[in-house]
Amino acid sequence: MSNTIQSIRKPSKAMVNGFDPTRIDELPDEIQKNIRRRDQSLGPGYRLFYDTPLEVLRGEGVKLFDRDGNEYLDVYNNVPSVGHCHPKVIAAVHEQMQTLNTNTRYVQESILDYSEDLLSTFPAELGHVMFTCTGSEANDLAMRVAKYATGNQGIIVTSGAYHGLTAEVASFSPSLGIGVPLGANVRVIDAPDALRYSSDQRSLEDHLRNQVRAAIADLHRHGIGLAAFIADSIFSSDGVFAGPAGFLRPIIEEVHAAGGLYIADEVQPGFGRTGQEWWGFQRHGIVPDIVTIGKPMGNGIPVAAAIFKPELLVEFGRNIRYFNTFGGNSVAVAAAQAVLDVIREESLIDNALKVGEQIITGLEDLAQDLDQVAEVRGSGFFIGVDLVTDRSSLTPDGDAAAGIVNALREDRILISACGAQGNVLKLRPPMPFSSNDADRLLDGIGRAFKRLR
Amino acid sequence: MSNTIQSIRKPSKAMVNGFDPTRIDELPDEIQKNIRRRDQSLGPGYRLFYDTPLEVLRGEGVKLFDRDGNEYLDVYNNVPSVGHCHPKVIAAVHEQMQTLNTNTRYVQESILDYSEDLLSTFPAELGHVMFTCTGSEANDLAMRVAKYATGNQGIIVTSGAYHGLTAEVASFSPSLGIGVPLGANVRVIDAPDALRYSSDQRSLEDHLRNQVRAAIADLHRHGIGLAAFIADSIFSSDGVFAGPAGFLRPIIEEVHAAGGLYIADEVQPGFGRTGQEWWGFQRHGIVPDIVTIGKPMGNGIPVAAAIFKPELLVEFGRNIRYFNTFGGNSVAVAAAQAVLDVIREESLIDNALKVGEQIITGLEDLAQDLDQVAEVRGSGFFIGVDLVTDRSSLTPDGDAAAGIVNALREDRILISACGAQGNVLKLRPPMPFSSNDADRLLDGIGRAFKRLR
Repeated sequence: MSNTIQSIRKPSKAMVNGFDPTRIDELPDEIQKNIRRRDQSLGPGYRLFYDTPLEVLRGEGVKLFDRDGNEYLDVYNNVPSVGHCHPKVIAAVHEQMQTLNTNTRYVQESILDYSEDLLSTFPAELGHVMFTCTGSEANDLAMRVAKYATGNQGIIVTSGAYHGLTAEVASFSPSLGIGVPLGANVRVIDAPDALRYSSDQRSLEDHLRNQVRAAIADLHRHGIGLAAFIADSIFSSDGVFAGPAGFLRPIIEEVHAAGGLYIADEVQPGFGRTGQEWWGFQRHGIVPDIVTIGKPMGNGIPVAAAIFKPELLVEFGRNIRYFNTFGGNSVAVAAAQAVLDVIREESLIDNALKVGEQIITGLEDLAQDLDQVAEVRGSGFFIGVDLVTDRSSLTPDGDAAAGIVNALREDRILISACGAQGNVLKLRPPMPFSSNDADRLLDGIGRAFKRLR
Repeated sequence: MSNTIQSIRKPSKAMVNGFDPTRIDELPDEIQKNIRRRDQSLGPGYRLFYDTPLEVLRGEGVKLFDRDGNEYLDVYNNVPSVGHCHPKVIAAVHEQMQTLNTNTRYVQESILDYSEDLLSTFPAELGHVMFTCTGSEANDLAMRVAKYATGNQGIIVTSGAYHGLTAEVASFSPSLGIGVPLGANVRVIDAPDALRYSSDQRSLEDHLRNQVRAAIADLHRHGIGLAAFIADSIFSSDGVFAGPAGFLRPIIEEVHAAGGLYIADEVQPGFGRTGQEWWGFQRHGIVPDIVTIGKPMGNGIPVAAAIFKPELLVEFGRNIRYFNTFGGNSVAVAAAQAVLDVIREESLIDNALKVGEQIITGLEDLAQDLDQVAEVRGSGFFIGVDLVTDRSSLTPDGDAAAGIVNALREDRILISACGAQGNVLKLRPPMPFSSNDADRLLDGIGRAFKRLR
């Protein structure tokens, strides 16, 4: 596991892939003024996207608009999942705001209607939903329940994982780098990088099975039982690893054999983004013990949730008081219901599959001539492009990725980068992204690679 | 500290002060059906207020309405702080929803305008604000920063404190009871109960100073330095302790002398609820190192924040990646700005002081004949009524409090109870609560005590 340890010790480039505050004098006056105001009131913990930060004033569908009315194609934001300022979500929130907005300690029908509708999208084994406000809170709750239900403390994650920002969740988010130490109860396994880990006669599945066995054994050697393996079903911060579908199965077998639970973190890939199905884990043919969902759930109204096999909540529910003031309040539920409805009415899951394939195919065509592109991978509207110095060494090239991201931003196309070395272009548009939008994106990426050379 | 230890070992009555699920058959059919649906989809972790749960369909100002259109006087909910369904908040959210709702990694002016406005309500030493979605996240972040800035791990809280629901924050929330163990780095001191701790020739200040000194010494004896003392400025879950104002000062002196920070948890008392000032700590004439705010901040739109002395964020901001996806997004900020505006435009802080005094005076008059009322205390619209078996023993009477709470609910007046033994009536209305509303409340409480006898 030596390269795993190295990758978690080094702060990821994705962390610093953004505006460099020392270059503020190079920016136009108006945005300079507002960035100085940010520094003054928000302080040094806040980061901005891109070498030249973007001031946004308006959003609509898959478009964002700056102060001068310039239009940007949004290929990054998964929170406004059914599109920026979707009229149906706006109307649902407005109606509910005028009627009632209160918490779950009163009986309300709308949360029951929504919960039943939401649960119908999951395998039957997943029977209860508990509401939170953020994916971080959902993962925090999921891990509290996993520890309580198993009586164990051990956690296994992938080496580039990010699961959120609470103290607990940060302790099992190795992508945060050396500033945030992993808990003594946390073990990391390699990201499911088929390109790099299945090239030497071993299958990726064998590699991952060996990794998770070693992690469990090491936990036991330290007197720590396994509570849970938690993984983002699309491995976004690891670098977007979609296939071969099924590679999660051997890991989950080992986890269950050791008495641990499997938590599927669907905060990023969920709500149909990966195409075909509602949830990313479904592509792997497995059923999680707990699922967490968040970002796209309310199209920007803060709402998230954890979904459980009911047996896991029997004791926790009886003995632990857990009340989330805003979690699942009337307005959050109204937004969430509208999102579910729109995904169905506008066939957005099919769209993610169809247009996602168009993008992947287009990128693969483009990549044929580019020695810097090691792999195009993904599912639906969650796509990664792995950039390397050259295909023979497969050395991750974070600088190239930052170059492409910033070149595209100048071309008014918004994407980002991920992966432990920040070398994977991350494409993750709002889901009404059309075939024409895909053409514009592909043209832009083609131009950006030409500028890079 | 023996009685402190006892009180944290015993699950508080406030925890079970609510609907008893075994009595579901006694309820009307319609609500019975919905409670069964709750059990089915939300599971056993969800609790309902009152012996007879309330189904709410509409809210307006200080009123809630049930399925049959019956009107309830809301003397409990501090989240809809400027009133249920306030038109100005609705309009601000609606306008912003139609324009843009995105995150803090783009430049947006509205968050800067709001941050500057918010910071202007704090002492000048508190210069940076970081946005989260919930008070729990704000306290989690505050404690992460406190530990990082001090290099220490030790935490001191009061014996009935509640600071939130993340794994970290729950570990320093003793009111959660035995099911949620305190961290090995956590020490508890007595609640600032002037009635019980300043009766034997010692002042409350001396008692608290001795308590915090002992806690710091015990931490050091275990090799643990002090990171922070955190306290709800009105000590809501402890039982509402408002005075004598200034009792926090000796605690903070000791905390600072030990190298620790003082975190003021204003999630419940903040935004003018305690009258006179914006923040509860101001009544004590002290300046916190960190302040956390939440519940009333967006009148129900999830938004919260932590406010810091800038020097605490220099290293944390540089080394730790902290990005809260929904925290301070465009719509959250729009709601929060509207709340600040309404508090000023409708003079709600003055109203809290004036009508709060009317309620306190009325309760004191009422209490003269009632041996069950040990004390009426509070500030502005945060009022506690301490119920005991009799005034000579001062034995907390949680059953009496539950009886009053449920009698009032039958009378369509909504309050709750708090305190380690659940024996303190908690009155905490939306802030447009009028003098007439206060009269109705006082009449109702008078009737409830008559029914109780």
